[in-house]
Amino acid sequence: MGEFELIRRYFQPLAENHGSEAVVLGVGDDCAVQRIPEGRDLVFSIDTMVEGIHFPQEYCPDYLGWRALAAATSDLAAMGAAPVCFTLALTLPEANEQWLTGFARGLSSASESFGLVLAGGDTTRGPLVLSMQVHGTVRRGEALRRSGARAGDLVLVSGTLGDAGAALDFLEEPRPSDDMAFVLGRYHQPRPRLDLGASMVGLASSCIDISDGLIADLGHVLKASGVGATVDVSKLPLSAALCSIKGIEAARYGLSSGDDYELCLTIPPERWKVAPEALKQQLTIIGAVEQNPGLRLRGGPDAVGNNAAGFDHFGGGS
Amino acid sequence: MGEFELIRRYFQPLAENHGSEAVVLGVGDDCAVQRIPEGRDLVFSIDTMVEGIHFPQEYCPDYLGWRALAAATSDLAAMGAAPVCFTLALTLPEANEQWLTGFARGLSSASESFGLVLAGGDTTRGPLVLSMQVHGTVRRGEALRRSGARAGDLVLVSGTLGDAGAALDFLEEPRPSDDMAFVLGRYHQPRPRLDLGASMVGLASSCIDISDGLIADLGHVLKASGVGATVDVSKLPLSAALCSIKGIEAARYGLSSGDDYELCLTIPPERWKVAPEALKQQLTIIGAVEQNPGLRLRGGPDAVGNNAAGFDHFGGGS
Repeated sequence: MGEFELIRRYFQPLAENHGSEAVVLGVGDDCAVQRIPEGRDLVFSIDTMVEGIHFPQEYCPDYLGWRALAAATSDLAAMGAAPVCFTLALTLPEANEQWLTGFARGLSSASESFGLVLAGGDTTRGPLVLSMQVHGTVRRGEALRRSGARAGDLVLVSGTLGDAGAALDFLEEPRPSDDMAFVLGRYHQPRPRLDLGASMVGLASSCIDISDGLIADLGHVLKASGVGATVDVSKLPLSAALCSIKGIEAARYGLSSGDDYELCLTIPPERWKVAPEALKQQLTIIGAVEQNPGLRLRGGPDAVGNNAAGFDHFGGGS
Repeated sequence: MGEFELIRRYFQPLAENHGSEAVVLGVGDDCAVQRIPEGRDLVFSIDTMVEGIHFPQEYCPDYLGWRALAAATSDLAAMGAAPVCFTLALTLPEANEQWLTGFARGLSSASESFGLVLAGGDTTRGPLVLSMQVHGTVRRGEALRRSGARAGDLVLVSGTLGDAGAALDFLEEPRPSDDMAFVLGRYHQPRPRLDLGASMVGLASSCIDISDGLIADLGHVLKASGVGATVDVSKLPLSAALCSIKGIEAARYGLSSGDDYELCLTIPPERWKVAPEALKQQLTIIGAVEQNPGLRLRGGPDAVGNNAAGFDHFGGGS
C-alpha cells in the first residue's frame, strides 16, 4: 500500500471527525492552515515516542494511538491552552492493516475526547517512531509558564501520582486484579488535564505536566523560576490501588515515577483562597515555594528518605 | 550526555540565533508560544526523514541538517508563506559529539538562511529519524493551494529540474567533476523558493513544491483541481550540467526525479502578462491546464515517450 492510500484509508477520517473551524485547510495540501482568533496566542509542542523506549515492543496499537496523543496534549494542558489540532509524523516498518486499524482507532478516540482535529502529517517507512505536534490557543500573553513560581506560593498537584509507574510491572499480566487494572488504565489511557489547566489561567503562577515524575518536573519549575520548595511527602495524593500494590513504596512512586500526566502548579495563597471550589476539589496542596533553591522533602514513610537529589528517576523516557 | 544537556549545548543557540518577535516563548517550557499578526493565517507542515530511506547511511550531518529543514521549508514556499519558526523531533542512536556538531551547524546555516528560528523540540534515543515542523504566515485566506488550477492556466516551474535526482549516482564520488559538483550541490543544499512563493500570492491559481518529481507533483495539483494538463517536454528547464551528465536521459530526470524543491505553479494568462519582469525571469512556461483530466506529455526526445502514466518515479522517498 502506498503512502497516499495509507493516509487516505486510516487517517483521513480523523481529519473529518469533528471539523474545527480554526483549521481552514487540513490534510492534503503542502501545508495546513490555521486561523488564530484575535486576542489569542498559538501554543504548540512536539513529542516523540520510540518503540522499545517510550512504549514496549508489540505494544497494543489502540493504546499507543491514545497515549501518544495524550502525552503531547498534556503539554497544552500545562500551558492552560484550549486544544485545536495536531499533526502526526508516523514512521512504521510495514503497512500492517490490523496494526493501523487499532492505532487509528485509539488515536481517533483520543482526538475526539480531547477535541483535537488531525490537520496534517507525514507517513514514512522505517523503524516504529512517531512524533506528534499539538496546537492550542490561549488568551494573548496569558500562557502558564514554568518560570512564574514565587516564594510563598503553594505547590499543588492534580489527581493521584505514581499509578502509571506502578503499571509497568503488570503490562504482561494475563489476569490483572482490580488494583492492577486501575493502574494499567492510568498507564494506557492517561487523560490530559485540559479543563483544569485552562481554568488555572490567571490563577496559577506556574504550571508543568508530570511526565517524568514529580521530583524531576517540579525541579524544572523551581529552576526556571529561580526558587526552591519543600514538599510534604505525607500530603502526596496516592490512589488506594497504588497503596495496596506498593505498600510502603507507594510514596516513592508518587514522587518519582512518570507517565501520569497530572499537573503540578504553584499559586499565591491569596489567589488560592478565592479559587472556585470546583477547582480546589481537583487539586491537593503538597508543599510551598521558598526562596532557598532546591527541592526538600519532609514527612512520609522512612523508606522515602528526605533528600530529593537521591532519587532515581524511573519511568518517563530518555 | 542527558537529553537536557544535549539540547542545551547543540540546539539552544539555534533558538537564540535570530530572535523572531513572533515567537513569544521558545525552547524550554512545556510548549512554545507564537503570536500571529492580525490579518494573517498560520501555515504549517511536518516532514520526516529516515536514515537509509530519505538520506544515505553515514550521510554527512551538515548536509542532513540543511536538507531536512530545506525540505520542510519548501512546503511553506509552496503556500506562499513567510517563514517564522520550526520544531525539531530528533531521534538518534547516540550522542556523538562530532555528528551533533555537524548536524547543528548545517541546521543553523539553513535556519539563518531561510529565516526560521527554532521554537521547540524533542530529543530521544533510537534509530536515526528526524521530523521537523515549519511554521509561517500568509495573508488571511490567501495561501496558495493545490486546488485552484483552471483550464487555460499556464503551467510554470522555477529553476531547473532533475539535478538532485542525477546527483544520487555520485554521492560516493571521491573527485567529482564540475558538473557532478553542481548537481551534488543541488541535492545536498536545496534552496526553498520562499521569496518566489510569497511573490506569487494573488497571482498563481495553484502551487506545489516539486519533491517527488514534476509528474507526480503536478499530478497532485491536477487531481486536487479536477483538471488535466499538457506539458511540452522540450520546454523543461534543464541545467547544462544535467544535460552533460545524462545526455538524452536528462528530460526523463526533469520529469520524474525528486528532491529539487523547485515550485510548480499555474497562473491565468492574463495575470501572467502583468506579472513583474523579475518574477517572469525566475519561471519557465512548460504547458497549459486543460479541462480533460490527466497529464499529457508532448515534444522532447524519443527517449521520453509521451505517456506520463508510464514513468517510474525514482527518488523522492516512500
